[in-house]
Amino acid sequence: MIEIDDPADPRLDDFRDLSTADRRPDRPGGRGLVIAEGVVVVERLLASPYPVRALLGVRRRVEALGPLDAPAYVTSAEVMAEVVGFHLNRGVLAAADRAPQPTAEQLARRSTRLAVLEGVGDHENLGSLFRNAAALGIDGILLGPGCSDPLYRRSVRVSMGHVLRVPFAPLPELEAGLDMLRHNGFTVAALTPRDSAVGLADAGLRHRRVAVMLGSEGPGLTDEAIEAADLAVRIPMTTGVDSLNVATAAAIAFYAIA
Amino acid sequence: MIEIDDPADPRLDDFRDLSTADRRPDRPGGRGLVIAEGVVVVERLLASPYPVRALLGVRRRVEALGPLDAPAYVTSAEVMAEVVGFHLNRGVLAAADRAPQPTAEQLARRSTRLAVLEGVGDHENLGSLFRNAAALGIDGILLGPGCSDPLYRRSVRVSMGHVLRVPFAPLPELEAGLDMLRHNGFTVAALTPRDSAVGLADAGLRHRRVAVMLGSEGPGLTDEAIEAADLAVRIPMTTGVDSLNVATAAAIAFYAIA
Repeated sequence: MIEIDDPADPRLDDFRDLSTADRRPDRPGGRGLVIAEGVVVVERLLASPYPVRALLGVRRRVEALGPLDAPAYVTSAEVMAEVVGFHLNRGVLAAADRAPQPTAEQLARRSTRLAVLEGVGDHENLGSLFRNAAALGIDGILLGPGCSDPLYRRSVRVSMGHVLRVPFAPLPELEAGLDMLRHNGFTVAALTPRDSAVGLADAGLRHRRVAVMLGSEGPGLTDEAIEAADLAVRIPMTTGVDSLNVATAAAIAFYAIA
Repeated sequence: MIEIDDPADPRLDDFRDLSTADRRPDRPGGRGLVIAEGVVVVERLLASPYPVRALLGVRRRVEALGPLDAPAYVTSAEVMAEVVGFHLNRGVLAAADRAPQPTAEQLARRSTRLAVLEGVGDHENLGSLFRNAAALGIDGILLGPGCSDPLYRRSVRVSMGHVLRVPFAPLPELEAGLDMLRHNGFTVAALTPRDSAVGLADAGLRHRRVAVMLGSEGPGLTDEAIEAADLAVRIPMTTGVDSLNVATAAAIAFYAIA
């Protein structure tokens, strides 16, 4: 533990101005660091393969983490707020470099249940979806066109750190990617509110290798994505109600294929 | 439509300083108005039994609502922001008085699927839960001890207006309330991550009148609530993962009993 009193200390640069856009790893100029906030999420980062660069926190929170292999900068809540640019009531942060992820094909080979996302750009929805995937036994997530970066700070936080635990891989070419999944024994089920889709419970998905494909809240999956799937499935819903939030719909689908 | 340019005009008092605590209907001093934000939610309010007092919006949004039975005050986005106390990108608001709600017993008599909540105090979770209840065919929600007011502005917004559509009633005495439900033919199933609980899919709940009981995120249901239920059910989950968000767990349970 290293005490620091000066908010301008360059050793704290990994944690500086976290809310400004250029720290977003998914934007040009972003540094691509993984930032974990709060004891629970920092613990998940420490247990993950991501190489931790440093920690920053108030003494009580840093001590709660036990022995550490990275420098831990200890300071006051006020200095922390000045460094990160906003008041942080979780009291501890960690910064890590990115770690290599498996390719989509490596992930497919070792998995039995996957999620494939198209156009899930909202960081909170993406984080919630990873949390639900972790809880409900999904082996990995494939990020199709239009998805945002699961390692953006807000996604890490909303996922409660489960983006660090559920493996993911890009799937930039959706049709070719679904062919690859079929080649690895997967049935690809597109989730859509269309009337012509089969009810989830009647689709016979429980005993197969299944990839559930989900689109963004609002527009949902593109027609091309639905046509490229093996079947279309739906959650029976009351007429006249907006579709469910994408992370909630995903949770129901993950439960149904478990 | 009535044009208003002066943010101090007393006809706009229903919409004044919406973010300050004393406008919260669930706090002493709150005025108990129901506030709807945005075209979709305002439309749901107009279609609900809640008596609309007035609307406030920019001309384009108010015109999108069609013919109205209440005064509609039309102004600029700047004047609106000054009145409500923050910038509102939804462009239209409506204020309504509360409407009488059924009692828990009236709701039980006419329902086949209910949710019973204990300690769900978070307004966003409560709003999401109502949205999921509306989508998945739940007939009503009983609010046990420790629940917050579903008509608080944030809950109305997060529910996408479905708190105005799904009936609810207070259930202040949980044990007596569950007896009343049983007397009306309901099986009360407590949702809990306890190992001793039966898996949701194996609990034989599909063809009964069912009330699913849910506790707050974090602590979950109290022991007393679980013991007062007819059975305890659980969502099969990966070990070592935090429990699901309460609205997400509710969605899975609502799907499973549909």
